[in-house]
Amino acid sequence: MASAAMAALVGWGLLDYKTEKYVLTRNCRVGVSQRLLQLGVVAYVIGWALLAKKGYQELDLDPQISVITKLKGVSVAQIKELENRLWDVADFVKPSQGENVFFLVTNFLVTPAQVQGRCPEHPSVPLANCWDDTDCPEGETGTHSHGIKTGQCVVFNGTHRTCEIWSWCPVESGAVPRKPLLVQAKNFTLFIKNTVTFSKFNFSKTNALDTWDSTYFKHCRYDPHSSPYCPVFRIGDLVAMAGGDFEDLALLGGAVAIRIHWDCNLDTRGSDCHPQYSFQLQERGYNFRTANHWWEASGVEARSLLKLYGIRFDILVTGKAGKFALIPTAITVGTGAAWLGMVTFLCDLLLLYVDREARFYWRTKYEEAKAPKATINTT
Amino acid sequence: MASAAMAALVGWGLLDYKTEKYVLTRNCRVGVSQRLLQLGVVAYVIGWALLAKKGYQELDLDPQISVITKLKGVSVAQIKELENRLWDVADFVKPSQGENVFFLVTNFLVTPAQVQGRCPEHPSVPLANCWDDTDCPEGETGTHSHGIKTGQCVVFNGTHRTCEIWSWCPVESGAVPRKPLLVQAKNFTLFIKNTVTFSKFNFSKTNALDTWDSTYFKHCRYDPHSSPYCPVFRIGDLVAMAGGDFEDLALLGGAVAIRIHWDCNLDTRGSDCHPQYSFQLQERGYNFRTANHWWEASGVEARSLLKLYGIRFDILVTGKAGKFALIPTAITVGTGAAWLGMVTFLCDLLLLYVDREARFYWRTKYEEAKAPKATINTT
Amino acid sequence: MASAAMAALVGWGLLDYKTEKYVLTRNCRVGVSQRLLQLGVVAYVIGWALLAKKGYQELDLDPQISVITKLKGVSVAQIKELENRLWDVADFVKPSQGENVFFLVTNFLVTPAQVQGRCPEHPSVPLANCWDDTDCPEGETGTHSHGIKTGQCVVFNGTHRTCEIWSWCPVESGAVPRKPLLVQAKNFTLFIKNTVTFSKFNFSKTNALDTWDSTYFKHCRYDPHSSPYCPVFRIGDLVAMAGGDFEDLALLGGAVAIRIHWDCNLDTRGSDCHPQYSFQLQERGYNFRTANHWWEASGVEARSLLKLYGIRFDILVTGKAGKFALIPTAITVGTGAAWLGMVTFLCDLLLLYVDREARFYWRTKYEEAKAPKATINTT
Repeated sequence: MASAAMAALVGWGLLDYKTEKYVLTRNCRVGVSQRLLQLGVVAYVIGWALLAKKGYQELDLDPQISVITKLKGVSVAQIKELENRLWDVADFVKPSQGENVFFLVTNFLVTPAQVQGRCPEHPSVPLANCWDDTDCPEGETGTHSHGIKTGQCVVFNGTHRTCEIWSWCPVESGAVPRKPLLVQAKNFTLFIKNTVTFSKFNFSKTNALDTWDSTYFKHCRYDPHSSPYCPVFRIGDLVAMAGGDFEDLALLGGAVAIRIHWDCNLDTRGSDCHPQYSFQLQERGYNFRTANHWWEASGVEARSLLKLYGIRFDILVTGKAGKFALIPTAITVGTGAAWLGMVTFLCDLLLLYVDREARFYWRTKYEEAKAPKATINTT
Repeated sequence: MASAAMAALVGWGLLDYKTEKYVLTRNCRVGVSQRLLQLGVVAYVIGWALLAKKGYQELDLDPQISVITKLKGVSVAQIKELENRLWDVADFVKPSQGENVFFLVTNFLVTPAQVQGRCPEHPSVPLANCWDDTDCPEGETGTHSHGIKTGQCVVFNGTHRTCEIWSWCPVESGAVPRKPLLVQAKNFTLFIKNTVTFSKFNFSKTNALDTWDSTYFKHCRYDPHSSPYCPVFRIGDLVAMAGGDFEDLALLGGAVAIRIHWDCNLDTRGSDCHPQYSFQLQERGYNFRTANHWWEASGVEARSLLKLYGIRFDILVTGKAGKFALIPTAITVGTGAAWLGMVTFLCDLLLLYVDREARFYWRTKYEEAKAPKATINTT
Repeated sequence: MASAAMAALVGWGLLDYKTEKYVLTRNCRVGVSQRLLQLGVVAYVIGWALLAKKGYQELDLDPQISVITKLKGVSVAQIKELENRLWDVADFVKPSQGENVFFLVTNFLVTPAQVQGRCPEHPSVPLANCWDDTDCPEGETGTHSHGIKTGQCVVFNGTHRTCEIWSWCPVESGAVPRKPLLVQAKNFTLFIKNTVTFSKFNFSKTNALDTWDSTYFKHCRYDPHSSPYCPVFRIGDLVAMAGGDFEDLALLGGAVAIRIHWDCNLDTRGSDCHPQYSFQLQERGYNFRTANHWWEASGVEARSLLKLYGIRFDILVTGKAGKFALIPTAITVGTGAAWLGMVTFLCDLLLLYVDREARFYWRTKYEEAKAPKATINTT
């Protein structure tokens, strides 16, 4: 464009030698900055968009993902309600299906054999304490209460009198744990089997390396440095890598996120398509209640109430795969060319409009534009 | 560009005064519309793209999310199978882990003590009714049947004779509930603890407001107007806000979606980064069957079958955060400039090609283009 | 642009007839290729972007989705631990809530009545076998062991001596199933109720066709050809369509993905808005352990341990809806126009810069540009 302008300018230049020189020098200056800009654009397109950003690849950003998890280990908890209770995988993982979100019990408060009946409310509950029956309106229940008041005020223990309630009896003691009961959970192992399928490229890969040694996964442990591709994680390490302290989390529970990212360049036949693991502590403090129900010989329904503290693991998988393809390459190059044009073009705008001198220049031109006509007419 | 064109046109104008005037006026008209367009582009870029759409911000659209839910409340159900059965959180939430998808029992049909054996099929099942054994081919089973036919036709009750089946006996009565059994569920409270982490900005926030009053969350209830940031929801309100009628849903079940959206402008140090809640009724009618298994003293396995009606809550969290950054600003402005150029450019196309008059104009020009040469040659 | 250039060139052409011809022919050539390019762009914009890609539609790519699943069927498993055990929906689906991810039991290994105590470890466990007590360090436990060693070496059976452990006794036999126990699972049916809501267009649809025949869904079975819109799937067909062999999966388990895609053109009032189902086998081999706990009359906690093999189904729903709107149409057309300009513009660059001949051309022009001035002066 600049040159088109130059052409025009020179055309008028016929009429005024001074202006012409002026214009030519100006064009030089603009021309140089223009070349630099164009060079920049070319460098950007080839260096950044094409090579660095792999602009020549078609992408699949939405892989099909499947995750299966499996925990292993046993732990013994010494408490008086259930002396020397041993916990194995069927007990300490909830849900047990081995999905990508699961909860590992590290601590618990058990209320062994509850049956429905009448018993005194726990003093810690708001409005539970009473002096006499008038403090216990029948049928009243609160958000935090364990049952429905029967209307009587009874003795809870030597020190407290509380309202009697219809509830699962005895009510849970509000005891707060002082040390985690399943400390061995630190040594439990988590096996994650993760398969990603990039359907666009009909490419599938699992995080369990294809290894010649079939027993490798029985013995290896994930380590970011020494064995970054081993899919077996020690719980203690997991928590540490997530930036948490196991004893803290084990005591009152928490939530940990495990992220698996696949960044696959299929132009190398997937040879460098490996999962990258990252870990993050999401929450401190996590517990919930669950119960096992059964019917006693007497035909009475009973349950054992468990308040479970533990660590919830969320496994989140993301992935992207790229492979050379013509269309994206064309688009990247095309866009580059377009930018190239745009730059050139903006340069001219600069030359023709923005420049103050140019404006003065138009003025002069117009006058001269008329002059010669006159002469021609006269001849 | 228009000016380049103008220049050229004036150049030819030398040869024809009439045309020149014509051209100048035309240029004026085009020039004006062109300035207006350019003004529009500038206004768009600055007003809309930059300010309204915050084009100067870098965005993080993929926050890391963690959700923990906790329900509170108790309810009593009066039915003859289990008289005055009290339900607490360990009973009415499934799964109990406090995840972002959970089911709240509001109604149920119980078949207390089933053991495996032979009993008559329920008349409501297709092909269950029979006159004699020939109607009951041994080993036959249908999609909707409770068990496998033994080949005999037995008395179900005074009015029906049905095929005997090997099944969990007695079979579930097809009774349809007439009123919800856990009506107090309306007053249950749901506490949602939701933490979002925008890792790109290393910014994290939870929906539980940092408040000086530690007991605030024990007493507050979410209300879109009075307390929009309280993360404790009354079930009845939830269903109402979702556009459902609690009694209906409680009777036959349903599904409700809870959406939490975070739109955070971190240029204000997250001071206006708050969750927005929205609710939607997704399904009417929702039930499923579950069972508690145990072994009787006699060594026989027994179970109590529960057909549970209730409300499923899905909590869906989305978020985006923006923060000032140079690159997006540059891109927005750059794109604006490009558009500015494009507009100018299209104006010229308009002037030079599209215009009908212009075409006639080219013709004339060519003739004249030759004329003067002649004269020069003659001299 | 080309014409602006042409204009300029012709302007200079005044001075040299040869060059002019040359220029005109060149312009013709360029002009032709330019027209072709422009035609291409127009064809692309109208044919591809507008019509094929529905560039005139506003899109909603993020529908609100709800999925409810329900399995039906019964199966009998003949094993000695629980003779003729019948499994119904309350037993063979985990979790039972009818969510979009669930596990269907097709095979199992049961250890009926475990209680906590001391018993010999299973020989298959590493380091379980022993000659005498020194082989069994007290308190030792391994990742794969069932319990914690008591320090004694005891007789496991006629052939093996193993370390005694504190554990749930008796320990699970490492038996591997030879044939699936719940073969009838092949004939179970899965009902998927899927509702999508495109909130942007306030349009909602469910995969359960609005049909006049209320019993249709009781009897229809999905078939890609004969009944592609029936939401009831036979498990055997599902596995087959996913590319798996049911007997294999039933024996050792596996994972199957069910994808539902909605591609809705709302300009036709949703009449052609139907779900498309696709199925994919994700994993081979899937099992986990779970247990039912109860307390015996003697007050001892007991459990029945189940190692469940089965098929996990993941239901994944995606959707997009489009509806005519002005803004997207404008954008598509506008972009088209921009490209049109760009093409024209690049053509000129080609003509003015890139072309080698053109460069020679500039040189000649400059000389001639000076010549005539001289003559004018002389006159």
